[in-house]
Amino acid sequence: MANHFHLNTPLLESVAMSKLVGTAVYLKMENSQPSGSFKIRGIGHLCQQMVRQSKGVVCASGGNAGMAAAYAARKMGVPATIVVPSSSPQLVVQRLQDQGATVKITGKVWDDANAEALRLAETEGLTFVPPFDHPLLWQGHGSMIAEVAASLGPGVKPGAVLLSVGGGGLLCGVIQGLKDVGWTDVPIVAMETVGAHCFNAAVKAGRLVTLDDITSEAKCLGAKTVCKKAFDYSQCNEQITIF
Amino acid sequence: MANHFHLNTPLLESVAMSKLVGTAVYLKMENSQPSGSFKIRGIGHLCQQMVRQSKGVVCASGGNAGMAAAYAARKMGVPATIVVPSSSPQLVVQRLQDQGATVKITGKVWDDANAEALRLAETEGLTFVPPFDHPLLWQGHGSMIAEVAASLGPGVKPGAVLLSVGGGGLLCGVIQGLKDVGWTDVPIVAMETVGAHCFNAAVKAGRLVTLDDITSEAKCLGAKTVCKKAFDYSQCNEQITIF
Repeated sequence: MANHFHLNTPLLESVAMSKLVGTAVYLKMENSQPSGSFKIRGIGHLCQQMVRQSKGVVCASGGNAGMAAAYAARKMGVPATIVVPSSSPQLVVQRLQDQGATVKITGKVWDDANAEALRLAETEGLTFVPPFDHPLLWQGHGSMIAEVAASLGPGVKPGAVLLSVGGGGLLCGVIQGLKDVGWTDVPIVAMETVGAHCFNAAVKAGRLVTLDDITSEAKCLGAKTVCKKAFDYSQCNEQITIF
Repeated sequence: MANHFHLNTPLLESVAMSKLVGTAVYLKMENSQPSGSFKIRGIGHLCQQMVRQSKGVVCASGGNAGMAAAYAARKMGVPATIVVPSSSPQLVVQRLQDQGATVKITGKVWDDANAEALRLAETEGLTFVPPFDHPLLWQGHGSMIAEVAASLGPGVKPGAVLLSVGGGGLLCGVIQGLKDVGWTDVPIVAMETVGAHCFNAAVKAGRLVTLDDITSEAKCLGAKTVCKKAFDYSQCNEQITIF
């Protein structure tokens, strides 16, 4: 097997979107990662760096981060404990269990689950897997851009990179990846859904902002506060346009 | 860009199917090829070998073969003419045109369209792209198995390969691919839908059989007669189980 857990995913031109926009639009098919999302890049990398000395991993996430942590732990042969709030659908619990994880249901909202995950990391000697705020995550996510560069071939550079922001982990990873391949002049368009716009709110306020609530439909994909690194980038990096 | 048109697609474990079967089931995600199917492997290879001397390609297919021929021709910068019968949905015509192909509507059924494609190849000096019956196609399709072997890693061999049969091109390619990596003892389970079971009918009759009609819902994925090579394999190769 390869020495990392993520796959080199297809880079596909979307004919429909290219027609709409009037220029070639490519999709990086991260949905075909074995854990179902790009999260496995950073979380796999973090686990490989940090887990060897520990008794397992713990992560508070009923979304893509939890699936990635469970998948990485299974591949490494260590136990995974995923803490989710009681609002999590049974299907999510089942999918995590199918990946061999122990699912612990704690509290009503994500913050409760995360507090329990931190407690377990401390008391049980488990490696805490943060969903988006860690340099090793960003380093792992950056591999995506190296793949895009290889797929496009020498001398071809994208006109822009579009991405979504939840907690800002993907954004930090993409900026890292663009640096790694020397594409520091490629603009980034960062998108959020209304009701989970913690990055937009922070940039407008000129400081980190914690949203009162996530009112977007995509609840488990949002964070109340964007990670500090993403905010810092927005203050000193003209590469980023935020929608 | 790579020197071929197909991508190395993800090999993903299906947790749902693995649970059902009681052993690990992997899916080769050929739906994420740029043309939408595995056909680009063989058709891309055939085009690269044969098109350089011609004025373009012609293919009779409103399905995956037509899309692959149109895609390969676009990548090579040569014109593609795709002939489809009048029963083809407008969406199919549109998708082919979006790939830059000239779509010609001829006759009521595929056989009419194919006769026109053969005529155009002859009179216009175009390269005829057969949908499933050509050694270069099988050679190209075989690349799939080399990728599976690389993904599984040294010393890991599948217990069986399941595949579907339309005209038999994928089957011949997989047998070729299994030979190439030394997996001649891996059983193949060949599946057809009732109403498009030309391979099953041929094996039962002990000779090639032409179905009166394709009564399966998946009309454009079936062939009335399986290719001779696939039938020959069934007669001399104990590797294949047919359903």
